[in-house]
Amino acid sequence: MSAPDWIALDWGTSRLRAWAMRRDGTVIEAREAERGMGGLAPDSFEPALRETCGDWLGEGVPVIACGMVGARQGWVEAGYARVPCPPLSAALTAAPGRLDAWIVPGLSQADPADVMRGEETQIAGFLALNPGWDGVLCLPGSHSKWAHLSAGEVVSFRSFMTGELFAALSRHTVLRHSVEAEGWDEAAFDEGVAETLSRPERLASALFTIRAEDLLRGGDAAAARARLSGLLIGAELAAAKPYWLGQQIGVIGAGGLASLYVRALGTQGAPATQANGTAATLAGLTAAWKQRTQA
Amino acid sequence: MSAPDWIALDWGTSRLRAWAMRRDGTVIEAREAERGMGGLAPDSFEPALRETCGDWLGEGVPVIACGMVGARQGWVEAGYARVPCPPLSAALTAAPGRLDAWIVPGLSQADPADVMRGEETQIAGFLALNPGWDGVLCLPGSHSKWAHLSAGEVVSFRSFMTGELFAALSRHTVLRHSVEAEGWDEAAFDEGVAETLSRPERLASALFTIRAEDLLRGGDAAAARARLSGLLIGAELAAAKPYWLGQQIGVIGAGGLASLYVRALGTQGAPATQANGTAATLAGLTAAWKQRTQA
Repeated sequence: MSAPDWIALDWGTSRLRAWAMRRDGTVIEAREAERGMGGLAPDSFEPALRETCGDWLGEGVPVIACGMVGARQGWVEAGYARVPCPPLSAALTAAPGRLDAWIVPGLSQADPADVMRGEETQIAGFLALNPGWDGVLCLPGSHSKWAHLSAGEVVSFRSFMTGELFAALSRHTVLRHSVEAEGWDEAAFDEGVAETLSRPERLASALFTIRAEDLLRGGDAAAARARLSGLLIGAELAAAKPYWLGQQIGVIGAGGLASLYVRALGTQGAPATQANGTAATLAGLTAAWKQRTQA
Repeated sequence: MSAPDWIALDWGTSRLRAWAMRRDGTVIEAREAERGMGGLAPDSFEPALRETCGDWLGEGVPVIACGMVGARQGWVEAGYARVPCPPLSAALTAAPGRLDAWIVPGLSQADPADVMRGEETQIAGFLALNPGWDGVLCLPGSHSKWAHLSAGEVVSFRSFMTGELFAALSRHTVLRHSVEAEGWDEAAFDEGVAETLSRPERLASALFTIRAEDLLRGGDAAAARARLSGLLIGAELAAAKPYWLGQQIGVIGAGGLASLYVRALGTQGAPATQANGTAATLAGLTAAWKQRTQA
């Protein structure tokens, strides 16, 4: 393999994804390791990176990283740029150690208090791939984000704990007995979405009906799991309605979760475009690398 | 100690509470053990009971039990009586084994699907202590219940996963970093209640502001913990409003949790009376024992 011009890292809580990159933004090679920041002390980041892609790191190859690697408990705290601002408006933060490594700062909002870290890079990438795009981006995940974009800036954003609620409810509450399944039931998902979208205040009682239905009528765990997901996503869409109503909507994410959001929005007559999450991350890291190179 | 006339048991998921009782409903002695049904196989209930109060059990002393001991995974499934009905309308279920032990059935509701087990005994006890009482009872807990009572019957009820949501969020999500505290902040609780009571659809994003406030402004963990509780109870009160608005309200529970509900209802101009939970349980078990004796 020819030596890369630079290295792109998406370094999250549970995983490290690394790409050996060419100057023009094309990928030479991709790797992935279970070396997320959640399991690393500050002085373990450089060794973890050398283990994962030490053979790429010859002669001061620059490294550009985004994600929780820049959190307070990460490699080094990369701070936040305050919205409204472009998604990559603040200078990158140098990582300690002997590498030429730089971390993308997150975004913060004063009121209501909110933060993102990692998603700003996907937003920047989405804008790089879709120049001049105005509208609302939805980034589903543990802490889903809705961001209002205008004229190249993030005007405002809101986070929702939907993904983490799903995980905590399905693993650590009485619902775990009723949703243990691999399967899926689209009708149950759609019904859940419709229920909390129209009556979001009923979420906490609607959740318990999953257990009660199982006890009284015997459970279809796949339907219960889809209903739980639908109830939570419906409640999120109800709360995010001021964001998406009447707007151009993009949903970032490759997998099943993003398509659930697109499906749920579709039931509300709100067509959304799905964008590849990895492509957005890479385009955003490339934009950050170009800014760094030109600086 | 003179031999009891009968034995009352409140046998929940995590604890067994036992009382040696006189015929007239007075308590001779009380005991408590960490022998909840959650940790017992069906054939371990009788040994657990003998361990806890074997010295009370001479010569066929009758035992009346309520709670999760009657769940499908309990000593024996005690079924459900379907509302509308009096709280103790169905016959007690005999426990297998050599004891004269009987379990109080729960209540179920067809639409929306709902169940309770243990609370029906507290409701019966509250009615025994307050004959002719009509109105709405709130029973806070892992799965809070709101029950509409009229003419001695439970007309309808709804469960809310508020307590279990609080536990799952404060232990198993990113919020655990921000709410680790023993203290309390009444103003933060009141603000949380007001926020979700007026805008319940915002719950999932309001939850994340707890984390964001902590990251951006440095955290007062006691205030964050009180705010989390307030947001969840406010959302429950918003959803339960058709129950309590304009009604006579009783809140069953001795401890801090019940007084939080009374406080939150008070901010809405809805005065509620707090009733002792243990007294209600004992009065309900006494009513069940009398029914059994007369049967």
